[in-house]
Parts: sequence; C-alpha cells; structure tokens
Amino acid sequence: MQKPADGRKRVVIESVQPEIDAGRFPIKRIAGDTVEVEADVFADGHDHVTARVLYRFQAVSSWTAVPMQPLGNDRWRGEFPVTNAGEYFYTVAGWIDHFDTWQSDLEKRIAAGQDIRVDLLIGAQLVEQATARAEGEDAAALRRWAALLRATDVIPAAQTAALDPELAATMARVLDPAMESRYDRELRVTVDREKARYSAWYEMFPRSTALEPGRHGTFRDCEARLDYVARLGFDVLYLPPIYPIGQSFRKGKNNSPSAEPGDTGSPWAIGAKEGGHTAIHPQLGTLADFRSLVERAASKGIELALDIAFQCSPDHPWVSEHPDWFKKRPDGTIQYAENPPKKYQDIYPMDFESSDWRGLWDALLGVFRFWIDQRVRIFRVDNPHTKAFPFWEWLIAEIKRDSPDVLFLAEAFTRPRVMQRLAKLGFSQSYTYFTWRNTKQELADYFTELTQTQVREYMRPNLWPNTPDILHETLQLGGRPAFLSRIVLAATLGPNYGIYGPPYELGENKPLRPGSEEYLNSEKYEIRHWNLDAPHSIDSTIATINRARRENAALRTTHDLFFHPTDNPYLIAYSKSSADGSNIVLTVVNLDSFHTQLGWVYLDLDRLRLRADESFQVLDHLTGMTYLWQGSRNFVELSPAKIPAHIFRVLRKVRSEKDFDYYL
Amino acid sequence: MQKPADGRKRVVIESVQPEIDAGRFPIKRIAGDTVEVEADVFADGHDHVTARVLYRFQAVSSWTAVPMQPLGNDRWRGEFPVTNAGEYFYTVAGWIDHFDTWQSDLEKRIAAGQDIRVDLLIGAQLVEQATARAEGEDAAALRRWAALLRATDVIPAAQTAALDPELAATMARVLDPAMESRYDRELRVTVDREKARYSAWYEMFPRSTALEPGRHGTFRDCEARLDYVARLGFDVLYLPPIYPIGQSFRKGKNNSPSAEPGDTGSPWAIGAKEGGHTAIHPQLGTLADFRSLVERAASKGIELALDIAFQCSPDHPWVSEHPDWFKKRPDGTIQYAENPPKKYQDIYPMDFESSDWRGLWDALLGVFRFWIDQRVRIFRVDNPHTKAFPFWEWLIAEIKRDSPDVLFLAEAFTRPRVMQRLAKLGFSQSYTYFTWRNTKQELADYFTELTQTQVREYMRPNLWPNTPDILHETLQLGGRPAFLSRIVLAATLGPNYGIYGPPYELGENKPLRPGSEEYLNSEKYEIRHWNLDAPHSIDSTIATINRARRENAALRTTHDLFFHPTDNPYLIAYSKSSADGSNIVLTVVNLDSFHTQLGWVYLDLDRLRLRADESFQVLDHLTGMTYLWQGSRNFVELSPAKIPAHIFRVLRKVRSEKDFDYYL
Repeated sequence: MQKPADGRKRVVIESVQPEIDAGRFPIKRIAGDTVEVEADVFADGHDHVTARVLYRFQAVSSWTAVPMQPLGNDRWRGEFPVTNAGEYFYTVAGWIDHFDTWQSDLEKRIAAGQDIRVDLLIGAQLVEQATARAEGEDAAALRRWAALLRATDVIPAAQTAALDPELAATMARVLDPAMESRYDRELRVTVDREKARYSAWYEMFPRSTALEPGRHGTFRDCEARLDYVARLGFDVLYLPPIYPIGQSFRKGKNNSPSAEPGDTGSPWAIGAKEGGHTAIHPQLGTLADFRSLVERAASKGIELALDIAFQCSPDHPWVSEHPDWFKKRPDGTIQYAENPPKKYQDIYPMDFESSDWRGLWDALLGVFRFWIDQRVRIFRVDNPHTKAFPFWEWLIAEIKRDSPDVLFLAEAFTRPRVMQRLAKLGFSQSYTYFTWRNTKQELADYFTELTQTQVREYMRPNLWPNTPDILHETLQLGGRPAFLSRIVLAATLGPNYGIYGPPYELGENKPLRPGSEEYLNSEKYEIRHWNLDAPHSIDSTIATINRARRENAALRTTHDLFFHPTDNPYLIAYSKSSADGSNIVLTVVNLDSFHTQLGWVYLDLDRLRLRADESFQVLDHLTGMTYLWQGSRNFVELSPAKIPAHIFRVLRKVRSEKDFDYYL
Repeated sequence: MQKPADGRKRVVIESVQPEIDAGRFPIKRIAGDTVEVEADVFADGHDHVTARVLYRFQAVSSWTAVPMQPLGNDRWRGEFPVTNAGEYFYTVAGWIDHFDTWQSDLEKRIAAGQDIRVDLLIGAQLVEQATARAEGEDAAALRRWAALLRATDVIPAAQTAALDPELAATMARVLDPAMESRYDRELRVTVDREKARYSAWYEMFPRSTALEPGRHGTFRDCEARLDYVARLGFDVLYLPPIYPIGQSFRKGKNNSPSAEPGDTGSPWAIGAKEGGHTAIHPQLGTLADFRSLVERAASKGIELALDIAFQCSPDHPWVSEHPDWFKKRPDGTIQYAENPPKKYQDIYPMDFESSDWRGLWDALLGVFRFWIDQRVRIFRVDNPHTKAFPFWEWLIAEIKRDSPDVLFLAEAFTRPRVMQRLAKLGFSQSYTYFTWRNTKQELADYFTELTQTQVREYMRPNLWPNTPDILHETLQLGGRPAFLSRIVLAATLGPNYGIYGPPYELGENKPLRPGSEEYLNSEKYEIRHWNLDAPHSIDSTIATINRARRENAALRTTHDLFFHPTDNPYLIAYSKSSADGSNIVLTVVNLDSFHTQLGWVYLDLDRLRLRADESFQVLDHLTGMTYLWQGSRNFVELSPAKIPAHIFRVLRKVRSEKDFDYYL
C-alpha cells in the first residue's frame, strides 16, 4: 500500500449527516433555511481536535468555514445558511488543536503547582508558528503574545497571557491549512424557492371551464375561473395536458376503445397534425392566450403548472420525423403501450434504449425549455417512473443550472424505491401513497416515515385526496364527511397538497363501476360542466383550510410532526410547530364518515411547549370556536354531520403587564 | 450536466449491504465463509430486471458472477464463497432482462388468446441478438430456438420453444455486457484464517515462569509451562513485551517512581543498550531460545502472540539514532509521556507528526517484519489508539499483502468511535468494554450491539475478564464465584477470549489499594512466583470450559446470539447456534457472587429450533449433568458455592428406527 501524501494528518472524519447514498445525491432545502451538519471527528491519542463545516454556493470556488461544536462521544455539530436557490456544497474539516491541548494541559500543571517555564516556551513556539499564517492585526497580536510567553522571568505575566481567551480565539482563526484533514466527499444541497415546500394545488381541466354547458372551454374561460381558484386559497393552478390531441385510436367517453363523432379524446394522447409537446390544442386558444393566462394568474398570486407527459399519439409529428425514438415491431408497425394483455393503441411510448437516445433527450429537454420560455416554472411530470432515471437526473440538472426556480412534481405511483429514486435525482415534490392511507395506524406510520426518517432529506410529499385517476372508495362511500376529513388531512399533514376540482369541492364520487377507482363520465374523456354555485359545495370550508395554512407557519413545515395518542381508533391527533416554536397547530380528525366519534386526546405537552399545570386555549380555525384546555388529557367530539375535524392553534396563557391574562 | 456515457443503461443499484462507510473499509470474514450480499436493484417502467453479485480474489482480474434472487420490494440477495485468506472484492451488476419480460408477457397474451405471431418474431430477434454473445453449444442452441420462433407458420412449435425453460436459462447466461449497470463502488472483504474468529488466549509474564522462587524466568521455563497451558485448553500464548527493559527512570515495585536495586522494571519501558524492539531482554534468553519456544508451542497447538508497544525507554537506541522521531522540548530534552499533571519519564512516545514520519513508519513496519521472520503470526498491539490511524491502515495492509495469516489484536480501551476505527482499518480482533459490563442489562445491550449491528461486519471482540492493567471490582469483591462466572461469560459470549494467568486461575484479587483496578505487587513491576498446584485453582473448570468451546461449533460464532428473558435480574441466559443450526448452546449464568439465585428462564423456542410441545434435554458441559426440559419455561438454580453457571448443549429428541427415543 502506498503511504498517504501526508501521514501526519491524524484527524478522522466519519458519518457525516445529512448524506444521501454516500453523497451520490443532494439533500434538499429552501432558501433561507439553515443546514445542520453533524460528523464524528476525532484523532488518535489525547490531543484536542477542532472541526469546521465548510460550505460554498455553486459558482463560488472558495469555502466558508463555520466552527462546529462538540456534542460528546466524538460527535460534532455545525450549521450554515442557504440563502439562494441553486446548489450548495458542504463538507467537514478537522485539525489537531495543539494550542487548545497545550492551554488545557497548562491549566492542569498550574493547578498542580508544577514548574511551567519550559511549557511556556512550548506555547511561545506554537504562537510563533501561527504568526506566519496570520494577517494584519492578528499577526501583530500573536507576536505580542509570543513575546510575553517567552519572557519566563515574569511568570505571572506569561501565565496570564497563556490563558488569555483572546489568544485562544486568535489561534483558532489561524489553524494550519497544511495539517487539515478533509472529509472524503463534498456533499450537495439543492436549494429551492419556498413554493417547493409549501404549495396548495388546484387541478382543473381547461376544456370544462366554459360557462355555457357543451361549449369547449378555452384559456379565456380559465382566466375567468382564476378568481374562484384564488377565493378557495390555492396558489398553484395545474392544467392537464394542453397539447393537440391525437385522432388515431382516440378513446371515447368512459375510456371506450372507439370514439364517437364529437368525442374529445384524452389530453394525454399527445400530438396531432397541429403539433406535439410544444403546441397548443387549437380549441383551447393560442399561445398568446396561454401567455395571458399565465400572467393573469400570476397577478392573482397563482402559478400555472403544466403537465408534461412524454408519450405520443400515433399522430404526433415525432412519429414520422423521428421513428427511431420509438420501438419498431417486426411487422413494421410502431410498438404501442401495453400492459399485456391490455393494449393502449392511442399511445406510443418513447424508447429510452433508442440508439439516438442523445437526440431524444435533447428534444425532451427542448419541450421544457419551450414552456419555461412561456414563463412556466412548475411542471407536473406524468409517469416519470416509466422513463429512464439517468435521463431525469440529467434533464433536471440542465434546467436548474439556468433556472433554479423551476420545480418538478413527480407523478409516480409505484414501488417505494422507485419513487424515492426519482426524488433523489431531482424532483422537487412527489406524489405519495396518501390516497391509500386511510386508517389511523396507516397514516401515523406513513407520515412518520416520510417526515422523521432520512427520506425527508430529499423527498417532499405532495398529498392528493383525489386525482382524475383516483377516486378512492373512502370518498365513494364516505361522501361529504370523507371529502372534508381527507382534505383536512392532506392540507395539515403536508405543506404541499392538492385537489382535483371542481369534482372535489362538489363531492363528485360516482365510480365508473363498483370497485373501480375511475370516475364515471371522467373528464379525461369528455367535457364536463360543473355548477360551482351548488349549495353542497364545500368551497368555503376549503377556503377556510387554506387560510389556516397561510396564517400558521406550523402548517408550512413537517420537521416535528408528532402523533398524539387518543383512546378512539377513529380519532387521529397530530401537531406541528413552526421552526422557531412560536406557532403550534394541533389537528384532530374523525376518520369515521358515518358516526360521531368522541374520546380523549392524550397530548404530549412537551411537544406543545406546555407545562402540565398550565391551562391553554385551542382555537379551531374551521369553526372559530375556542376551547379552554388543561393538562394532557382533553375531550374531543367530532360529528360527520358538521365538520369532522379541528385545526387548532394552540394559545398559551400570557400574563399581561396589567395582570390581565390573555392567550397568544 | 454532461450526458452519461451510455444513457441506455437503465438499471439502478442502491443500498448494497454489507458496506462499511461507503466502501471505505472492508468487511471481515473467515476463509470458508459465505458472504451474503443484498442490494436494491430496479429500473424504470415495467421491464423485468436481473442482478448478479460479482466477486474476485485479490490478484485475479476477472469477476465471477453469481445470480441474485429477488426478495420482493426491489431487494435482491446473492452470496459468494471466500476460500482463501487475503482480500476479495465484490460488487453488484444489473440488467434489464428483455427476454424474461418478453416471455412473461407472451404467457399473458397466450392466456388471453391473442395473436402472437409478431410477438414470436420479437422473441426471435432477441434470441438472434444473443447468439452473437454466446459460445459453443449455447450459440448453436440459440440459433435452433431462433429458427423455431421464426417459423410462425407452426405456432404450437414456436410457442413451445418460446416458453422452454432451457431457452430462458441459456438467455440468462448471455446477458449483454454492454448494457450492464454496475454499482458505483467495488467493496472489499478481508478474509482471515479461522483463528481470527475463534481463539482462547493465555497471557503470561515469561519472567515469572521459573520453577524456583526468585529466579528470573526464561523462554526455557516458558517451554516447560506449555503443557500446562495446553491442558487448560488455550491455543494462543500471549507474552507481554520481551524486549530489553530500560534503566533510566525505571519504575520500582508497585509502580513506585524510583526503582530499588534489583527491581526488574516494566517490560513496557522498551529499549536499552542491548537493543530495542527487535532485541530480546537478555535475562529471558536468546533469539534462538525464542525460536525454539515458538516451535515447541506450535507442536502443542499453541501459537505465540507478541506484544508490540510502540514507545521507547530513554535508553532505546532510536532515541540517539533518530532523535527526530521524538518531540523535542525547548530545553533540549525529549518529551516524555504525560497525562498532566502526571509524568511518565520512563517512556518516550513517538512523534507521528515528525517530519521524518516516512522513516518512522518504515522502521515500525520493520519491527513487525522482524518478528514475522521469527515465525510470529499474532501481535497484540499495545495502545494502538495513541498512534496515527493512517499509519496502522498502511502498516496492516503492507503486512497482510505478503502474509495474510498475520493477525493483530488492538489493545485500545478508549471511546467507541476510536475503537471502531481501529477495527475498520484492519485490526483482526479488538479488546472491548466487557470487563466493565457486569449487570444483565449491560451485558445484553453491549453484546447485542457488538453482534447484531453493523459493527459485527468489521469488529471481532476479544473478551478479557482480567488483564495485568485491570482487576475489576467484580473480581476483587466477588472472589471465586466471580472468577468462574466471568470466565464463563467471556468464553461463551465471544468466540475470542483470554485471561491473564496464573493470577486468574489462582483467584488473585488484591488491588493495589481500595478503588484501584491495579493489582497489588503487580507482575508489571516485579517477578512473581505462582503455585500452580494450589488446591483453590480453577484450572480444571477452565479446561472444561475450553473443551466445551472445542466441542460446540455454536461457541465459535455469534451471528445469532440471543438473550432469553429470565424472571431473576441476576440470571442471564443466552443461546447461540452453529451456522448450519445443528449445534445449539444455551448458557445461563448467576451474576450474583454472594447468593444462590433461582428462577425461570423463558426460552424463545424458535431460536432453539424447538417446538412448544417437544421435550428436550440440556446437557451441562460444566457438570456433565443432563436435565429434561419441556416448553419455554424452565427452572434454574445456581449457587456461587458450586459452579454458578450452566453451559448447556441443547439436545432434541430423535425417534430411532426401533421406536426408541434418544437425544442428539
């Protein structure tokens, strides 16, 4: 074995956290966050060590060093701020701290009454060596201290100098870079703007937005709908594909294999003679109309999110222009999508094993670039798990290099490792299994995994109680109480959530057939007309929920999501707090859509920053009611006939200057 | 971001286990072991994947591939044998298995009654492409199968060929190497001979081996002691330092700061005018005597282990020859060892920050090489944690490259991370905190950590109830019952253990002073004379314990160490089994040296491979008694007046051919 370049570097740095797959992937943070870094830092023998976190913003070549603090048992912690969207790097460095060792030994020698003259000279040598590494005032000061240490005929003065905390602080600034041990790897942080962590999505089919029944909706109709979406409190408006829809093998209503005349087809059958992924379905309007919609939405605080589905109808221009991007069958036809024995002849998947994979990748990147040029900054990516992983990693890196504000939501409902991989390689948000987690235990287990394990470092859940593809039986059977409880869960368990409306607020819950999760008369295959003013709409409750999210910083985080025990299996209770602990929200939901449930909630008061003997108020954002509670055990009753949930802000009693109690 | 070299490689390989610190360090195994490897292997989409473990022995450049089996949830497992001492490498490879995907889809199409003519042609293409990668009979066979698949006018024959398991097996042998995804890292296995995992050590001061009281013992006296050591059943004889002992600042009896005339000094004050680490203390004999001892020991199945302590007395030749290997103080003296305010003026530590660190490293390596030339293959390294970590990593690699049979025991009693690091960077065995783990909970927690967490992949504990430095108060106060219970614990909790004798078998338990862990009249500072024939010696029980270890493969492993509950806090019970499960040992120890303890042991019968309704026998190796037990709950009574432990072999009832029950 070769000797190392410098065998005198004795410090070991191990087990740096956070670190994903040995640094293969970045962790994710939001601009303004602080990144906490821990590491084992130690050396042989009894010399003291010291450690620094080193960090830098992408293009900056020099590291900024931040001291780490010892936690005991050789563990150290430090932190650094990430202020800009983009990529940060970090690692850990360690030194033998000869000066600190010397100073601490000297104190023991003095306490034991030993002759310290030689030791003072050793200290003088250490300070003199450091002088060469110091600049300006530090160098001058170190020279003065060294002279004091050398003057061993004046032991008291030398001793005072030796133990001067200012000397120690100065020495700590001029550690010898030649003797620095550096952690093996440089680790990365992807820093996004806040919307990556906190967003409320409203999915809506633009073709169903016309005021008159039967007419094909347009982007202008969408503009008219913006006030409604804003009133409900959503800040992302997500449109299913807006590209020209193919004619070949077009699907009819309710996914019938053959379309009737006038059937509009599925927007996911992308591409027609009017163009492919960079064109607009003519009945929706023009590119100028689209740009106008983006701008009008922005003026109301709403960002538009586009659906990018990389698949082609047989009429897509790429099919003739780039036949090598698709698999060809021995009979000369192009391979359509299949899940044998099912066939989806209206869809051609792209072949990521194409010999022209480079050309394909560039074209797909071009699609994103085109829409980014139209000011779109959020993309909901359809089925990313059926495209090659290396492609996504490259594409997202390419886009974020120039546009770190672009966000990607991965619509992958598949196995855990695959969903995690997509999050690791760059997707900003991820769909989850939330829709299929309905019991108390399922919800607690799943959200503990998502928010309290390493997964949280790279995966940001986006929770959907429904989508155009998923009408869960909880909604089918539970009706209005289920629609209310599921949206409360989504909006409070995750800072990112979304609904597919208007079906959601209108309680649309008829399945295609019993046992199916497909909607009857799904908008995927036909235009629907919705009566937004229907009295049974839960629109105002949704608006209230979204207002509670805006008013409570606790609902924009999940770092300390905690499930409090209850004595009723249908009552789930959980709390979250803002980063500074000043805002705490406790949510209680009745998971039974059919019966009133009542019981005791056993609060972990430490989590709520409350004392056992303290009375406190809980203010329910959903009803405006305030309750006076005390201690851990408190009673709750929730009826499906009303709103089967509480979203409580926890208010601690504050004694005012005038001895008048109030709650904050 | 650059595109990858080949974006068509779609398989992901993650979370390979075992893997220490991202492959920075090897795992450890014994020649003859099987290494189990697990990994997450998956790809985008719905294509099937397949995975292989790749492995190779050090100098062999080509990989051997072993198929992995899916465990579900994208986890795969495979294994490979390590047959030779030395270094092995392993990694994981994955492929999209297009043929397997095709075959499985074809079965679904056939079941659905679809026209499969085009699909058969697709299969023919896959087989034809594979033909180019096949050799000999495989290639010919694939050509025949391809022809059958192409003959779509004879669908039944083509279909039979398509689903032929032989075809699938042949296709699995010729996966396309160009489309292989390889795990990022090559991982290492250090393979040792069996003694690394299973050894019984006897530590003995050679100068105390003379038959006549007062005379300085010699290597010849040691030879005469070999039969005794062999009778006790030990297979490693470990000698404290045998090098010339310095005169300067020599320590007197009981570590007194100044020696009286005739005081022998500490063997750890290494180096005198007669030489340093490659010389022999003249009173012990000659190098030829030493060689003779090594050979005689070997003839009795005992290996000699030497103590390597890298520190120098002021009289060590290196002090004058290489003053730059030591720290110089400003007054011109050499820095002695210190733990302020304590001073150890008889010891000069080496300076691993010496500018001539390369020369120092080479010299220290030379010490090991010298003793390896004298046929020593086991080294007990004194205080390795006070020498630089990079040095040990380099030194052990250098030695094991040429002599993979050399073993190193790290004598580090320090913080957990430091001890773990030494094990990671190559030490074959490690001292532990066993001496200070005495209660049932302490023992269960510590040994669960050592044997059931990742630590077991690289750290092999060596358990010592006493050493010349550690006379624990358990022994001081507990006397004979404590000496018995502690050696039973050491010998059965760990395959590697040792005692410092004759003090151990003779129950020597007088401390230097109350509260001290030092022996009174310690052999470290004087010659002692021991009466090995004393009637209170526990030598025969020790021999019995070591015989039980030889006779039970279960005691040579710890892979499934499991602590069974008991209803008495002083009764600890645990079992281990051999790798094949055929040998199971249950140990029960009374941890109270003062009172008889009795109670119920609640056996986990699954761990013992027993059914709840099955009666079984337990044969106590310590007494030869056999008990008939049944079910989980069994009664135990252990008295400190007798032997306060059971080492049970578990015997299952076997019904013979003649309907006569016996136990095996």
